[in-house]
Formats: sequence, C-alpha cells, structure tokens
Amino acid sequence: MLVRLLVVALLWAACTPAQAQQKNLRDYGIEVGVLAPGQWNAITDVPGVAVGHTTLVRGKSIRTGVTAVLPHAGNVFQNKVPAAVYVGNGFGKLAGSTQVAELGTLETPIILTNTLGVPVAADALIDHAFSYADNAVVGSVNPVVGETNDGYLNDIRGRHVTKRDVLAAIKSAAGGHVAQGNVGAGTGTVAFGFKGGIGTSSRKLPGNLGGHTVGALVQTNFGGVLSVDGVSIGKALGKHYLSDALNDSPDGSCMIIVATDAPLDARNLERLAKRAMLGLARTGGIASNGSGDYVIAFSANESARVPHDSDSPTRQLTVLRNDAMSPLFMAAIEATEEAILNSLFQAETTVGRDGHEVKALPVDDVLGIMEARGYRVLR
Amino acid sequence: MLVRLLVVALLWAACTPAQAQQKNLRDYGIEVGVLAPGQWNAITDVPGVAVGHTTLVRGKSIRTGVTAVLPHAGNVFQNKVPAAVYVGNGFGKLAGSTQVAELGTLETPIILTNTLGVPVAADALIDHAFSYADNAVVGSVNPVVGETNDGYLNDIRGRHVTKRDVLAAIKSAAGGHVAQGNVGAGTGTVAFGFKGGIGTSSRKLPGNLGGHTVGALVQTNFGGVLSVDGVSIGKALGKHYLSDALNDSPDGSCMIIVATDAPLDARNLERLAKRAMLGLARTGGIASNGSGDYVIAFSANESARVPHDSDSPTRQLTVLRNDAMSPLFMAAIEATEEAILNSLFQAETTVGRDGHEVKALPVDDVLGIMEARGYRVLR
Amino acid sequence: MLVRLLVVALLWAACTPAQAQQKNLRDYGIEVGVLAPGQWNAITDVPGVAVGHTTLVRGKSIRTGVTAVLPHAGNVFQNKVPAAVYVGNGFGKLAGSTQVAELGTLETPIILTNTLGVPVAADALIDHAFSYADNAVVGSVNPVVGETNDGYLNDIRGRHVTKRDVLAAIKSAAGGHVAQGNVGAGTGTVAFGFKGGIGTSSRKLPGNLGGHTVGALVQTNFGGVLSVDGVSIGKALGKHYLSDALNDSPDGSCMIIVATDAPLDARNLERLAKRAMLGLARTGGIASNGSGDYVIAFSANESARVPHDSDSPTRQLTVLRNDAMSPLFMAAIEATEEAILNSLFQAETTVGRDGHEVKALPVDDVLGIMEARGYRVLR
Amino acid sequence: MLVRLLVVALLWAACTPAQAQQKNLRDYGIEVGVLAPGQWNAITDVPGVAVGHTTLVRGKSIRTGVTAVLPHAGNVFQNKVPAAVYVGNGFGKLAGSTQVAELGTLETPIILTNTLGVPVAADALIDHAFSYADNAVVGSVNPVVGETNDGYLNDIRGRHVTKRDVLAAIKSAAGGHVAQGNVGAGTGTVAFGFKGGIGTSSRKLPGNLGGHTVGALVQTNFGGVLSVDGVSIGKALGKHYLSDALNDSPDGSCMIIVATDAPLDARNLERLAKRAMLGLARTGGIASNGSGDYVIAFSANESARVPHDSDSPTRQLTVLRNDAMSPLFMAAIEATEEAILNSLFQAETTVGRDGHEVKALPVDDVLGIMEARGYRVLR
Repeated sequence: MLVRLLVVALLWAACTPAQAQQKNLRDYGIEVGVLAPGQWNAITDVPGVAVGHTTLVRGKSIRTGVTAVLPHAGNVFQNKVPAAVYVGNGFGKLAGSTQVAELGTLETPIILTNTLGVPVAADALIDHAFSYADNAVVGSVNPVVGETNDGYLNDIRGRHVTKRDVLAAIKSAAGGHVAQGNVGAGTGTVAFGFKGGIGTSSRKLPGNLGGHTVGALVQTNFGGVLSVDGVSIGKALGKHYLSDALNDSPDGSCMIIVATDAPLDARNLERLAKRAMLGLARTGGIASNGSGDYVIAFSANESARVPHDSDSPTRQLTVLRNDAMSPLFMAAIEATEEAILNSLFQAETTVGRDGHEVKALPVDDVLGIMEARGYRVLR
Repeated sequence: MLVRLLVVALLWAACTPAQAQQKNLRDYGIEVGVLAPGQWNAITDVPGVAVGHTTLVRGKSIRTGVTAVLPHAGNVFQNKVPAAVYVGNGFGKLAGSTQVAELGTLETPIILTNTLGVPVAADALIDHAFSYADNAVVGSVNPVVGETNDGYLNDIRGRHVTKRDVLAAIKSAAGGHVAQGNVGAGTGTVAFGFKGGIGTSSRKLPGNLGGHTVGALVQTNFGGVLSVDGVSIGKALGKHYLSDALNDSPDGSCMIIVATDAPLDARNLERLAKRAMLGLARTGGIASNGSGDYVIAFSANESARVPHDSDSPTRQLTVLRNDAMSPLFMAAIEATEEAILNSLFQAETTVGRDGHEVKALPVDDVLGIMEARGYRVLR
Repeated sequence: MLVRLLVVALLWAACTPAQAQQKNLRDYGIEVGVLAPGQWNAITDVPGVAVGHTTLVRGKSIRTGVTAVLPHAGNVFQNKVPAAVYVGNGFGKLAGSTQVAELGTLETPIILTNTLGVPVAADALIDHAFSYADNAVVGSVNPVVGETNDGYLNDIRGRHVTKRDVLAAIKSAAGGHVAQGNVGAGTGTVAFGFKGGIGTSSRKLPGNLGGHTVGALVQTNFGGVLSVDGVSIGKALGKHYLSDALNDSPDGSCMIIVATDAPLDARNLERLAKRAMLGLARTGGIASNGSGDYVIAFSANESARVPHDSDSPTRQLTVLRNDAMSPLFMAAIEATEEAILNSLFQAETTVGRDGHEVKALPVDDVLGIMEARGYRVLR
Repeated sequence: MLVRLLVVALLWAACTPAQAQQKNLRDYGIEVGVLAPGQWNAITDVPGVAVGHTTLVRGKSIRTGVTAVLPHAGNVFQNKVPAAVYVGNGFGKLAGSTQVAELGTLETPIILTNTLGVPVAADALIDHAFSYADNAVVGSVNPVVGETNDGYLNDIRGRHVTKRDVLAAIKSAAGGHVAQGNVGAGTGTVAFGFKGGIGTSSRKLPGNLGGHTVGALVQTNFGGVLSVDGVSIGKALGKHYLSDALNDSPDGSCMIIVATDAPLDARNLERLAKRAMLGLARTGGIASNGSGDYVIAFSANESARVPHDSDSPTRQLTVLRNDAMSPLFMAAIEATEEAILNSLFQAETTVGRDGHEVKALPVDDVLGIMEARGYRVLR
C-alpha cells in the first residue's frame, strides 16, 4: 500500500529538525498547475489591487484580525468595479452579496474578518465611504464583508474587532508583497486541522492568450482531505476528515477573492468566481455543511469601471467574449489552489483561547512525503 | 377620458375637511382580494408571531426606527424556523440571506431598519442571541436585517439607530394589534410620493383549504403608479412615476415579511415569498432599479421547527404538498397588497430633515376617487 | 357591497346581443398604464422582430399550434442576441434556459407550442439552424421552446404538432400587425376560466427617456382573479380561483416574451424579464403551483448582437446604465399586462376535445362592468 | 524537474506492449479518496437504481448512443423521487431542469445522449410515460435529458439517435454491474484529449455515519489537465489544455448523475449535486466556457418518494438534518472523481467521422507515471 510507504517517509521526516516555515509552496520548487504566476505571486499582481491587514494578537485569547482588499486606489464608491459573488456553500454571513448580484458592481473595498465581526466591519466601510469629500451626499452604501469563524483559537464572542481596526487595514493596504499566514483575518483560522490563514497567488496568461492576470486571496478555515499539488497529505498523515486522528469537523469556511485585469462584465465574473471553488476542491476541500465558502470576483480593469454618476444613460465598454474565458478559468483555479496551499505553508503554530493549540502544517513532513512521491524539493 | 372624470371627483374631494387617517383600508369597506383576513388583519394572526417597534422621532431631522418580527416567543437560535428569501430587486443591504438560502432556516428575529442601520442592527441581534443562557457556547449567529432608505426625511448619515433601539423593539414585540404607518422602521419612509411606513394584513384560508393563515408585514418606501384595489390613484391624481407632478424617483425599496402557520419547507417558502412581489405589483410598484425589494418568508408552524442540536441525524416532518400551495400563494399576494395599502392609509404627514415634508396619502381624495369608481365607501 | 352593484350591471349586460369580439382592449378606450404603445401595439414595434403562427384546428379535438418570435430577420445562430430567462414558476418544460443564462445569448428563434410539442419544436429549430448555408459545420444548437398545456381543449396526448408546423410558423413570421387570440400556440389555451390565447402589446418611451420600445407577446393559459385595468372582473362575475362558480384550477402557465431595442446586456435583460411577472400580477394572475410562468427577454438592438465567430477576443458595446432601467421596467410591466388582456379580448369561444367548451371572455359584460366603474367605453 | 523524471518513466512505458484496458482504476490498486465503494462500485449500489445503454456504432461515422438511469423500477411519474439540478457550466441543452428545481422532483428516468439527440430523447420519455396504463390521463410530462457533444467522432448532424434507441436503453436497464467506457451516451465522447465515455463509482458510508450509499455516473467529454488521484498525468505527458501537444479545446461537457439512498429533500440534494463538480475539479476539469457541466441528484430512498396523487394535502417524511450532510458530500466528491477516471480507464481507442481517431488513455503509461510517483500498482 502506498500509504504504508509514505508512513515510512513520514517517520523519517518526523525526526528532522525545526521546520523552515514562512515560505510559499513554490519556493520549495513545487509548482501548482501549468500557468506561470505574476511577479509577486499575489493578488496584487493585478494592477491597482492593494491588500492591508490588521492583526489582533492580545493576551491569551484574542487571535483575530482584518484583511482589506482594495480594487483600486481611488474612491470605489464613485468608481465602482464590475463584480460578482458565487456562493460555494452559504453557511456564512457575507454582507452585501445581493446588491453585487443585482447591479453587477462593487462599491467598497472588500473586508474579511471573523464571523461576529461582520457588522462592525460593515459599519466601518460606511465610515470609510463617508470619509471621501466626494461622497458628501451619499446616503446608501453597500459594504462587502466576508468572514470565517476563528472561534477555536480566538475569543470570538468577545467581538474584539473594532471599526478602527477595519479602517487601519484599509489604510495600510498596499500593492506588491502580501503578508500571508497568521495575519489579518487569518490570524486565528484553522484549515485541514492545521493552522490556516491568509494566502495568495496569481497567474499571468501568456500574451497570445491576452496576457491578463488573475489573482486570488484566501482566508482558509475549512477541512477535508488535504492535498498538496494532488498529493494526499491528509491520507499520508492519516489526518483528515472522517479519519480517527482528526476529530475536528471540516466546517469553518473559506473566503476567496478573485481579481483580474481582464475586462469582464458581471456575468463572466460570476463564472470566474465559480471556478475558484474548483481550485478549493483540488486542495481537498469538500465545502462541508458548516462551511461558508464564498467567492467574490471583480475586474480591476480601468476601462471597466462604472462611475456612480453619469451624464449619459449609456456606457461604452469592451468586454471579453465568452469563448476567451477558458484560460482565465484555468488561471482562477490554479491561483486559488496555490493561494490556499500558501496560507498553510505560511501559517505558524498558534496557541489561543482556553489554551487551544493548532499546529502549523508540518512542512518538512509534507516535503518528505512529496519527495517520496517523486518531487524534487528545494529546501 | 376617465382621468378627466376623476379629476372632477378629485376637485370635489379636495374641498372636503380634514381626513380621517389612521384607519386600515378595510375599515372603509374596501376589501382587497377574495379571501378573508384573520382576526387582527395582521402578521400576528399567525400564531406565535410577534411584532415590536422602536420609533425614533427626535429634533428636526431624526425620523427613523426599528421594527422587529419574532417568529416565536422562544429562543429562535435553538429552535430555528424554516425560512426563505426572495430577491425582488437586489438594490439593498439585506443581511443574512445566503445562510437562510443554504440551510433553509431563520435563527434570529427579523429586524427592519434604515439602510445605514443594518450593521448596528445585525450586531444587536448577536447581542440578543447571546442574551439566552442556552446560547452560552454559540459562536456563530446569522442575523437577518432588512432595510429601506429613509434619507429624504431622516438624517440617515447620522446613523442614529443604536443597538439599544433594536433590542427594545425585540423586547416590546407582542402579538395581537400591530401599530402601522409612521412607526418603527416605517417612521421616515416614502411610498408613491406619499408618506409610507409599516403596514400589515393577513388572510385565513377556509377550513376546506387547510385553514392556514398567511400574514404579511411591509416597510414601504418605493414608487410606481399607486393603485388602490386596482383603481389607479396615481393616474387619477396625475401623481406617479414619470408624470410631471412627481419628480421623485420610484426608488427606495420595500421589505416584505411573510409568515404562515402552514407546515412548509424552505423550497415552498421561497415560492411563497416570490408571490409577495405579485402583491406589490398590484399596488402599482415596479421594482425600480434603485429599489431593494426583498421578501423573507417563514413558517411558524410549531412542528416545523428545526432544533439547533439533535441526537438524531434525521428529522421527521409533515410538509404541505406542492399541489396544496396555490391557495397560500393567493393569500400571500392579497395580504401583501393590503399590507402595502394599509401602510399608506395609516401613515401621517411628516416633516423631517432639511424641512422636507412628505404628505400623507390624501385619504378623503382617494376615497372620493373610489366612490367615483362605484365603490360604496364607509366613512 | 360593490359586488352587488356590479351584478346588476352584469345582468343587464347579459341581455345584450352578440359581442363585438376581436378588438384589443385599447380599442374600447381602456388604456392600461401611463405609457403610450408603439405603432402596432405589438412586440413587432421593436424593429426587426417578427412573429409567425401555425394554427392547428382539425376535427373535433385538435386545437393547438405554434407561434414563432424571431429576434431579427437574419441567421440568429451566427448573430446571436443578448437574452435572459426568468422563471416565474417553473412547472413547465421550457427548453434552452440554462444555456441562455450561462452565455447571455439567444441563438434561435423562440418557439411557443403545447407542452408535449416541445421536443418536436426543439428538433425543428435544429433543422432550421441547419437550413442556413452559413451553419454548415455547426454541431451544437440551443433551441429555445416554451409551452403551455392546452390539453383541456386539445388532444394533447395525440402530439399533433410536427416539425413542418414549426418551420411554417418561422417562415410565415412577419413584422407589423400580429394576429392574436385563437392563433398559433394560443389556439387551445384557457385563461381565468375563459378562452385565452396569444396577445401582444408594446410601449414606446418618450424621447427624453431614451425613446426605446419594449414589446411583449404572451401565450395565456393561467388563472387567478381576472382584473381588467385593475377592475376585478373575476369578483364581479363571481368567477375566479377559489370561487364556487369556477371549479377549474388556476394552473396552466403563461409564456411571456419581452423584446426591446434598448441596448441591454443579459444582466439587465434578466431584470427586465422579472418585471413581466409584475405585469401578469396586475391581471390577477397568481403563478399557481401548476403554472409554468416563464419570461424570455432579448435585445434586438442591432449593435448589441453577438457574432458566433470573431477574430477578436473582445467585443465593444454600448449598454444602458442600471439607473436608466426603471422606465423600461415600467414599459415591460404595462406591455405584459395589456398583452395578457388582449389575448382574452381577442380569443373566441372554442369547442374542442371531448366536447369541452371554453367561452370567450364576455366582452360586453366586461365593458358593462367597466362602465359601472366609471370608465367611458368606446363601443 | 519532476516532469523530466516522469518523461523518462514515460518513454520507458511507451515501449511496453499492448495495454490491459477495460479495468477500473481501482483494479490497479489505486484507491481514490478515503471512503470505501459499494459492492459494484457503481451507481447501481444505490438500491433500486438501474442503468441501461444503447450503443450506436454503425459504418464509419456513427459513434453515439443513449444511457438511461432509472431511479426505481416502477412508474416514476406516479412515484416521483426528490431531485435537484446543479449547473456547473450551462453551455448545454439539459431538458427539464426548471421543473425539477421548482417542484423538487424527478418524474422520468434520466436519459443521456448527444447534444442534437435531446429533443428525440425527450419525446421518447413522453412515449415511455404514456406506456404505463396508470398514466392514461397524464397530459404533462417533464422529460429530463442531458447530453454532451460527440461531434468529433460521431456524425452528430445526422441525428442518428431514435426514440426506439432511447426506449431500448430504458428497457435494458438493470442493477448490478454497469458497462463503462465506449457504451451508450459515451460511445463517441472525448475527455482530456483521450477517449472518454461512461464511468461510474460509488461510496458507502460506515454505519456510524448512517451507512448511506452515494453513487455517481458520468458521461465524460471535457478537458483541462488530467489528474489521476492527484497525479498530473496531463503535465507528465505534456498533453493538456493550453499545452503545445494538445490543440483540442477543453470544451465538450460532462454530465453527472448522483444517486443516494439517504432520505434527502430537494434542497440538500442540490447541495449534494454541487459537490459533484468538486469531484470533477479533482480530475483536472476546469468547466471551460464551452462545457455543459450539469449534475442531477436524486434520492432513491423509498420513503422519500412523492406520489403524483394523494388524498392528503400533506406528506410525512423523514429527512437528513443539514449537519449530517458532510459525509455524503465527501462521498459524492469521491464517487464523481472515480467515475470520471473509470470512464477514461475503460474507454477504447475509437476511429469515427472523417477518419478522426481518438486514442484511449495510455493506461500503461499512466500506471508507469503513477509508479514513478510512489504508487504500488497492481497489473
């Protein structure tokens, strides 16, 4: 049996010294999929997109935070972006989805936080919209806030996320390198029985396929049978949903944000969003009953923006044809898969509420398993 | 032309003395539809359903409030009710819809308030859930909050609704008579260019059709061409969407809550919810672009409740067959139509923010038009 | 009681001689809504749209047919039109809906027929697509076929509709005047207990609202409580769903096709389609359990067409902004309401299968009721 | 690079003699997932479910057929089963989906065939329903027919599937062993650039999780980057979507049927259906633009059946609670993944229309790659 072989590899691996955490999967030479990532291998490879985190680690039981994704640097209310939401499994509290679906636009930054922090974060997004002088007469704002439940490690009932924390995450948002793992909204999350967190990745299509970039950012807090580039780590370790070694439920949610610079309308963004769940599937996620698995996709293409006001009843736009979508679908799948894996590779062992401890993914063990599967791993 | 005839009737009516407000449409002998209402002609005719209001009228510019609808008197989180949401037009900020759709249950009271009060109301519902000793370990709550935008009369940007206001509305909830018009979440709303508000109505099916009750409660803040029992008041008064006399937009939203004691599962509740929009259509509503028209339907049937925890993986239940649904559909249409009209008949002229004045429906004029249309009106 | 008054009017009306059928509602001076119709008051007011019928009346029990709506005169497969489907109540056999929803386009004419004729009609649409030389290598066609069940008057189990009948309807399609009532797919249908059929109407927006036209064509075969311009004919006649006088079920379906020359994308076409159900509601329809109520909306705007093949991965297009949609929504509601009423005013008493007789709407009686309600009727 | 290593393995494999086709993946010792299959590792492990095929291989260009899945041996119209449809990507012609969604029931066997055969198959299902004496007065039938496009190997434009072929597939349906690969609706399909076809698999939950069985049957005709139990065969062979070696489009569709004996209502069946797409994702499918990826799920649990007629307006039923669903989700994912792989392992090289040849999956090569990845393969 394969599993037996791997257990040997595993035992060997278990004897190796402290793990080299804090690297992306790709840094070990393991390349998910067939498309190449962008410069930062992050959602920020989509021009204009910025990410900010507020990480709350206080005392023994506050392990939570906020992650903000900005579709562009300007006033998003005045210059909305085409957007769509896909509900993979709706056991979650995503704010703002029906208006995005109806109007096809996103008019605030996207905030991720913990389940019980959604109302406060939504309130903060209203503050944020009101902070622009141009929005002085605005009386309706559709805040988009996603969440996962970090209540195992975090005193979630204490509701420690404040409006200030949310505004700080927005303010700190920047392009380029994105911090991953135990940061922001990923501070207290758990995935596949290991410490989850924030992860990101991107794909840049070759020029002959349009050269567009697709980026994904995830907040991982779900379960199933972990696969790394298809290798069933869950099985190899005997630690997976329905195994004896893992009493944990697979519940807990995954928020996925997909950005692209391709000029897509809301209909094709919804299709793109749907593909992100296929990426989640490739990591072994099962969208369990208690999981709130949502994908928010938007186009950051500058020409695709939808001004709040207009002198004209019409808009001129350029959109990608349906039959040009498939490479983008593949990009969204791969970027999501790799973003989820990065969240695990980057996260660190965490002790939180009531002394609960969640161990980081045993990276060396995992790499050992990968090597036993024929991978040449860079260490 | 009919309109000309009615204008004569109208001029006559305009000379009549002060209006007898604060009555339901039915009190004037005008009976919408073909089914009979329940005892209270209110959503509270559904056994166990309670309604509470917090009305905020302060100074010159605070004209807002909160309305709470409780599906039963107990701990709704521990004893959820089957529920569904239908989006008539999604330009709105309804909280909680995706989880209701996924799991088919409602686990909090339903709160209605103003657009920018949704986050605070959602936060208050979490407080409310936490206030039950039985919920001491609950770490995930799905607050359901609807809204309309009362920003013409109310200083909506001031965000004056507090968690205390929300909890007070829940606490004050009771069965029996329901206050309508300028109360609770209807304090500052506008419908068809007149003062809107909270309205309610019900229908009780005859015994041979099951004897079930369907109740509706609405928060009216939308536009179109007002019809009262099919009589086009908007046309008769020359005051309607796209008329010269009404520069107002038809935008603004309608929240509709439909309750029934029939044992329905979530699928048939969604179908029931969909019918409420047909009731709105009969009042002349058009679900304009800027309208957030949502229907939340639930079954208050005691045997249909879904316990949060269970020793068994299965539930035994009795549900109505598909082919028994049509009478309930008709009941939902009629109750919604009449609830909307009641909200107008009960609302009073209001002066609010920046001196904006919204006049009450000119009930005497309307009744005059009805009489000119052959109605025998009880005054 | 109003009803009593009307019964008097009714008895009087019952004594009048043979009815002047075959007119539109508007020909009697009754104007539904506040917007003006186009030249033909028909779906064909939308430039390029053509309608054709094949009417099958043979022997004592064949009372059925086919109605074809063509979005333009060319090869629809090669030049698709933006389209959307809205399911009002899905007890029906509409072919082709999922592909329209996914791709946002319609690639065949729309065929309406009886329930059991859908497969044959779909097959005929494939023949039709193959009849174009330009489609010589096409191996996938998405036929769109709607239906209602004419089995009370028609030997529906005999499945008498042939591919030839379908192709003949397409071939005969023309702009301008549209035959209504007992024609095509409306030959054997029943609505509100009276003879239903095909109806059509249109609205042309004033220039300052864009000047766009919205047309509707319906196949009426459903029930509820008939209202004519808001006047409850069902109540006045004591003949409606749940009344003693009408044992018929309200089931049976309504197919609605909405066309516009406004440049809409699929998302806004879906919203437009949704409004047609509000028009149905205004006629007293309830979307009963057994009703298959579907709306197919498309844009016939020439610049909005989507070529099947393209050298470019992108399309340039002009679309109406969300906030310009409300007048179109109102137009769709009014056109649908009037189209349904026209189908009843135009249909004729029919005897069919097993000697079943369905009487035409008693137009004189209805007009008498309308006069008793203050309408000045042109006879 | 891993790929290079595998290419060596591959070259070696290429020299081995004729492949041992016609086995399931599991027969080689490769066990997908963590749950155990049922007795037949087929959808027929769900009690009462039967499968029948009509395979059409005639002359040089007819390579098509029909597959029928029967939810039980009786009159499905009179004893409907709870069912749901999930649209993974709607570029397809599935008949019957809207009624299944509205009413939550399936009332005919499910037929799979080629794209242009859907109308004929739907017509045949009406014949089939009419063939029951009990259905003598039935005038409305909702045929459910799925398809994929076999036009590369098959003369699809010739429309060679007849009603007789469809009825023969139904008639031949049986439990127990299910023929896979080039049979029935899979006769002419292509997947990942190899010969696809019909595949099936099942999972039986352990008794402590309810002991329920979930079975999947697929018709594979889609693309992406083939993975076998997570091992990227597409990458190893350099043959995948967007690779140089594969000019084929990834388009072409996958129909998935999921059956279970768990007592699920339509809402939870829709959730189960959604999980099947996660199984497809694990094989490397991307749900490309041109793919018609649909899942039809039904419960064959005897107590869950919905009689067409009833003396009572209510039904008593037992349903699984939401929080008991996750093991079934995992079962659906695993069964779908393995069914897709089985379709490839069982299919045979086929020459068809215009001399087009599609090679079978090079099983020995694949097994070689698997061995190089640490699998102990049974040959």
